[in-house]
Amino acid sequence: MRGSCLMKKKVLVALGGNAILRHKEKGTAEEQLENVETACQHLVELIRDGYKLAITHGNGPQVGDILLKNERSKDILPPMPLDICGAQSQGMIGYMLQQSLRNEMKKANIDIPVVSVTTQTVVDQNDQAFHNPTKPIGPFYTAPESDRLKKEKGWSMIEDSGRGYRRVVPSPEPKTIMEKGIIKTLFRSNAIVIAAGGGGVPVILKENGSIKGVDAVIDKDLSAQIFASDIGAQVLLMLTDVEKISLNYRKPRQMDLNKITTKKARHYLQEGHFAPGSMAPKVKAAIKFVEAGGEKAIIASLETGRRALKGRAGTTISQA
Amino acid sequence: MRGSCLMKKKVLVALGGNAILRHKEKGTAEEQLENVETACQHLVELIRDGYKLAITHGNGPQVGDILLKNERSKDILPPMPLDICGAQSQGMIGYMLQQSLRNEMKKANIDIPVVSVTTQTVVDQNDQAFHNPTKPIGPFYTAPESDRLKKEKGWSMIEDSGRGYRRVVPSPEPKTIMEKGIIKTLFRSNAIVIAAGGGGVPVILKENGSIKGVDAVIDKDLSAQIFASDIGAQVLLMLTDVEKISLNYRKPRQMDLNKITTKKARHYLQEGHFAPGSMAPKVKAAIKFVEAGGEKAIIASLETGRRALKGRAGTTISQA
Repeated sequence: MRGSCLMKKKVLVALGGNAILRHKEKGTAEEQLENVETACQHLVELIRDGYKLAITHGNGPQVGDILLKNERSKDILPPMPLDICGAQSQGMIGYMLQQSLRNEMKKANIDIPVVSVTTQTVVDQNDQAFHNPTKPIGPFYTAPESDRLKKEKGWSMIEDSGRGYRRVVPSPEPKTIMEKGIIKTLFRSNAIVIAAGGGGVPVILKENGSIKGVDAVIDKDLSAQIFASDIGAQVLLMLTDVEKISLNYRKPRQMDLNKITTKKARHYLQEGHFAPGSMAPKVKAAIKFVEAGGEKAIIASLETGRRALKGRAGTTISQA
Repeated sequence: MRGSCLMKKKVLVALGGNAILRHKEKGTAEEQLENVETACQHLVELIRDGYKLAITHGNGPQVGDILLKNERSKDILPPMPLDICGAQSQGMIGYMLQQSLRNEMKKANIDIPVVSVTTQTVVDQNDQAFHNPTKPIGPFYTAPESDRLKKEKGWSMIEDSGRGYRRVVPSPEPKTIMEKGIIKTLFRSNAIVIAAGGGGVPVILKENGSIKGVDAVIDKDLSAQIFASDIGAQVLLMLTDVEKISLNYRKPRQMDLNKITTKKARHYLQEGHFAPGSMAPKVKAAIKFVEAGGEKAIIASLETGRRALKGRAGTTISQA
C-alpha cells in the first residue's frame, strides 16, 4: 500500500471544527476522539482510493474551551494570550488526529507516517482587520465586566445576540506559512502532514525581522489554500457540515451548486450569496486556490467527500 | 552560516522545565517567553560554535497549570485527560521555542528551519510503574475530595508534604518514539527539530495494533536519550538548574563530579547518590546514551552548557 507517490493525486483536506467537536456535545475527550476517529475513517478511504493527503483543521470549539478555562482560573493563574491558546489547540487536535489516523491506517494495513507540525501563519500588521475586529471569541461577559475589560486590557467587545458581551478580535488575511519549507520536506518524504491548525498561530513580521504572536484569528480555509498551493496539491477539499454550497441558502429559491467556474463563484460571492465567516471564506479560498494553479477546489460534507472527489457530490469550483 | 551538516557534531539538547517557567514566577506568557528567549540565546551560541542541534524540553509547570485550569472549570467543561493536556503543553512550548529560536537565529544571521513535532512515546502497558504510581501531578485536594476522586475516577492519591492530597500517576519507562522516522527525516533535512516535549505523550500499543494515550508521565531525560540515539547524536546535553552532578549532594562532604565513566556513574547511582525523579533519571539517560553508542552525555546548567561542550564545565559521562 506504500506505492510510489509520483502518480498520486495530491489532496489537501480541510476539516471543519465540527468534524472534531459538534455543537451540541459537551466536548469530553471521549466524544472528540470518537469524532476524530470517524473523520479518520473517511480519510483512510481517500488514501485507499490512491490520493496523497495533507490535512488541516479548524480549532474554534477547542480554543473557546481553553479560553474559558483560562478565564475561570484567572484569580490564581495568569491567562494565556490567544496565540498560545491557539498553539495549545494545535497540539491537542494534532495529537488526536495523528493517533487516530495512524490507528485507522493500521486497520487498513497502510503504513504511512503521520505528523502534526506546530504552525505559525504570517499576517500583515497593516491589515485593515486590525482596525476592525469582527471575530467573537471566548466566554460571555456581563456589561460591567465588558466595560472593565475594554479599559484594563484594551479589548474590543460586542454585544452578542442577547447572550452577553464577548471579545472580538481581528481576522486578518493569511500571507505566508512560516513552516512552509518544513511542510514541503515532510510532504515530499511521503508523510501525511497535519499543519496550519486553526489557520495557524497568527504572527506579524516586525521591522527588526522578528516574528511575534498577535491576538487574532485566521480563517482556516484561507490558510488551507496557502498550505495546499505550497505543497502543489491538485485538489483543495474543504469538508464541512453541508453537502454543497447554495444560492439563496435557506431561502425560498435555494439552488444547490454542483459545479461552477471561478468566474461564476466570484460573481455569486459579490452578490452576497455566501455568509461571511462561513461559506464566503471557503469560496474565496477555492477561487484563490484555482487561480494559483490548483486543478479544483471542492466543498462537501465529511460523508460525501469521497464521492465529491469523483465529481459525484459536493460543489466543485474550477477554471472552466 | 548554512554550511554542510556532514561535519557538524550532532547535539541533542534537553531543556529543563525551569528554562521556561521558573518556580518562583507567576507563569505569565511574558515571563515564559522571556525565559525561552534567554534559553534560545544560549542555543544560538551553540549553533554558532558549529553544532547541529535537536531539542527536547520538560513540561511539568505548564501541564500543572493546564490541569489546574481544567479542575477549576469542571462544573462547566469536561476536564481533559493527562495525555491531551500533555499534547497541549507540547503545542504551547513548541510554539514558544520555535518562534524564539527563529528570532534569535535571525539576529545572528542564521537561517535554519525550526519545527516542533507533536510526539507520542510508547510505553509498555505491563511496566511495573502502572502498579506503583509515584509521580504527583496537578492541583492539591482536601482529604474528602481526595477520597471522592479515588472512588469516582479510580485515581491514586497521596498526601503531599503537608500541603494536601495530590493525584499520583505512573512514570513508566519510554520504549520508542512513534514519530521517530519523521524526526530523522527532518533532522537529516537540516532542520532543528523540537520533539518529545515533556517526554512525549505516553501511549500504549494495544493487542489489536492500535495505540492509545494513557494517564502517565514520562521522564523527559529518558525520552531524550531515545531521541538522541535515534538521530545518531554524538552528545546528549542535559541542561538543568545545577552546574554539575555531585556525590553527597547538599551534605557535608559534597563532591562535584567533572568527568566520570559510565561504570562509575552506575556505581554511584546504585549507591543512591542521585535523587529519584531529578538527577537519577539524568544519570540513567546518560549511561544508556553512551552504551547505545553516543560519545558523551553532559549534565550542566543553561549558562555553562557551551563551556561544558568543550569539557570546561558540567559533568561529562563517557565510556572511558
